[in-house]
Parts: sequence; C-alpha cells; structure tokens
Amino acid sequence: MSAPVITAFRQVPGFAKGLVRDVRARWAFEEVGQPYEVRLLEHPEIKTQEHRALQPFGQLPTYSDDEVELFESGAIALRIAERGEGLLPADEAGRARATQWLIAALNSVEPMIFDLIAVDVFNKDEEWAKLRRPSAVEALRTRLGDLSKALGGSEWLDGDFTVADLIMVAVLRQLRHTDLVAEHPNLAAYVARGEARPAFQKALADHMAAFAEEAVPA
Amino acid sequence: MSAPVITAFRQVPGFAKGLVRDVRARWAFEEVGQPYEVRLLEHPEIKTQEHRALQPFGQLPTYSDDEVELFESGAIALRIAERGEGLLPADEAGRARATQWLIAALNSVEPMIFDLIAVDVFNKDEEWAKLRRPSAVEALRTRLGDLSKALGGSEWLDGDFTVADLIMVAVLRQLRHTDLVAEHPNLAAYVARGEARPAFQKALADHMAAFAEEAVPA
Repeated sequence: MSAPVITAFRQVPGFAKGLVRDVRARWAFEEVGQPYEVRLLEHPEIKTQEHRALQPFGQLPTYSDDEVELFESGAIALRIAERGEGLLPADEAGRARATQWLIAALNSVEPMIFDLIAVDVFNKDEEWAKLRRPSAVEALRTRLGDLSKALGGSEWLDGDFTVADLIMVAVLRQLRHTDLVAEHPNLAAYVARGEARPAFQKALADHMAAFAEEAVPA
Repeated sequence: MSAPVITAFRQVPGFAKGLVRDVRARWAFEEVGQPYEVRLLEHPEIKTQEHRALQPFGQLPTYSDDEVELFESGAIALRIAERGEGLLPADEAGRARATQWLIAALNSVEPMIFDLIAVDVFNKDEEWAKLRRPSAVEALRTRLGDLSKALGGSEWLDGDFTVADLIMVAVLRQLRHTDLVAEHPNLAAYVARGEARPAFQKALADHMAAFAEEAVPA
C-alpha cells in the first residue's frame, strides 16, 4: 500500500501561514501515525482544470490513497481517522457524536469565523466591513460563549480526543488575530491543549518547513 | 426499538417555512422508510437550559434514538443514512465521497449562502448589507458555477442519490428568493429532481402541516 498523498501550497501570505487547511490533514496523519506524501503547488495551479478535477472549488488540500480521492479537509480528516487508530471512539454512538462535533465545527462555528475574516482580512478597507464588524463579532462571541458552556470543565468535547477536537481546534485557531477565544479561559485552554499535542507540533512544523524552503535564495 | 424523535418548530416566520432544518431530518427518514416522532417547540424554548443540553447553540433540530442524542442536521442525516438503507453506497470509498460532498455542502457552499441571507433577510435594512451585497453575490455565483461544472450532466453528485445530495439540495433551496441557482440549468434541474422525490414531498408536507395546525383558531 502506497502512502496517501495530499496537496499543500509552496508559499502563502503571512496571515495564512500555519492556518492553511493542509495542517488539518497533516495533524490527522500524525495522530494516527500514518506516513504521507505532500505534493506542493504554486498558488495559480489550484485554479487549473487539472486541479479542479480533484477539487472543484479550486482550493486545497486534496487527498488520495489507494482507494479514493477526496477534497474537503473535514472529510479528509474523517477518512484518515477511519483508516487509522486513535481519532474515533470504537462504539457507533461515540462515532456519531464525534461526527456531530466535527460538523458543528464546520457548519455552526467556522461560518461565523469566515464572516470575521472576511471583515478583518479580505475586505478590511471596504466601508461595509467597518460597518459590519460589530455585529459579526457579536454573533461570533455568542456562538463561542455557547461552545464554552458546552465544553465546560472537560478536556475535550466528548470524552477522549477525537477528530472532532482536531477540527474544532483548527477552526478556532483562525481567530489568533483576536482575543475572542481568550475571553473564555476554558476555550483558550482547549485550543492550547490541542496545539500542545506532539502530533500538532509536528504537523505545523512540516507545514511551515515548505515555506522556509522557498525563502532560500535560488 | 422505539422510533427516533426529532424536534421542530410549532411556528416560524414566512421566509423560514419549508426551510427549517428539521426538513433535512424528515427527508432522510422518509428516504430510508424509518418512522419517527416529532416534538414541537415554541421558539423561546430553544433558548432554555433544558434544550441547550441537547443543542448547545440553542437551535434545532435535535435527534434521539435508542443509542444516541445528536444535533447538527448534517450529522443527524448521516446517522439516519447509516442506520437505514438507500442513502449511502455500500463501499467504503463511495461512503467517503458521500461524506465529502455532504461536508462540501455544509462548509464550502452553505457559508456563502449564509452570507447572502444575512444581507437579504436578517440585516436587510442595514447600510453595510446594501454595500456588501454585490461581493457576497459574486462570491456565491463563482461557487455555484464551480458546483455546476462539478455536477456536469450527472443526475446526482456521485453516482446514485445519497445523503450528500439530500443535504446539498436542502442547502441550495435556501436560495429560492434569488435566481442564482436558475443561472445554471443543470443545478436548477438538480434541485428540482431532489424536490420531486416522494420522500422530500412527504417530508415537506409534514413540516408545513405543523404550522397549519397552529393557524386553526383555538
């Protein structure tokens, strides 16, 4: 069986370093101890027909193993979790709850973070972004408050660390330019716990290493 | 084994009728032929501590069966698909691709639809909403164009109808107040094909029937 292959960027702007979604796939691989290969792409390559055959929206990462080609980092992380050990409970009910929290991260938490990033990064000089920011922050603050209450004093969202925590921590990390997570000490500790895992540290280091190579003069 | 139970609203504003996410769960139940029960809630009830124990964000639907309680309509639909027949391929690779498309609907398509609904419904009188609308429409138009190309001439996203098509069609239906889906005839036909399924028609009728009861004078 050959090693699964993912795609990642050869270079990205500073605000994206450490946050591109190949980190999620890399982290999952490290958690289950699955060796993998990375195919580095220049930014324009993700918009080509060839890449869109793997990722219809012209994004990355993509994933391929001996049986299937996938896009969507959430689905890729689930695939890695299902083929490996340690990222999903053994029982069906526990797996359903892990899938629930993974989807909650992607559909109930991340869209509100997208809203704030649209305001703070991609449209920061637009008049609408200045006017929109307070309500975007308020909606996100409420959602994070609910998440903080749901987490309570627990270490992870539902028992042991699962692929859902991996995705939720990765989603919350996108708020590093704000104090919104820090407003909830248990949520801040949760993100810190995720980031302290050796598998995350290895994944992040490998993700950053690709950019460092680029920095070496030709 | 007792029938699974979901929650739904006793009444909602006109713009939400037919779109509340209990439709997604009802549709999945009908597709697999699983009888279910509905617990109707008044709107304020979803913000109570009691409901938040089932749904931390104070939303609905919730789902419970003999083994597990869940929130997130995407996870609920997957659970129903996994316990029943007809919404997921038999092979692992096909199931992974169905999960991928379900997550694409929820994380790559729906967040852009949320953006437009924020502009057109929830903040329609705000100055920022008027200024934001063109770029929100443009981003969504690009995404729908990509989705249209990925669908091509196929009937469903990946072979037979799956829970991913169910969620994708439900996501796209939220654009019924616009012509954005109609700009892509294959996407419009895809949504129409989904809505024409007897299981969807039954689910929608049952969803609407709850509101009709409310209209009867006491």
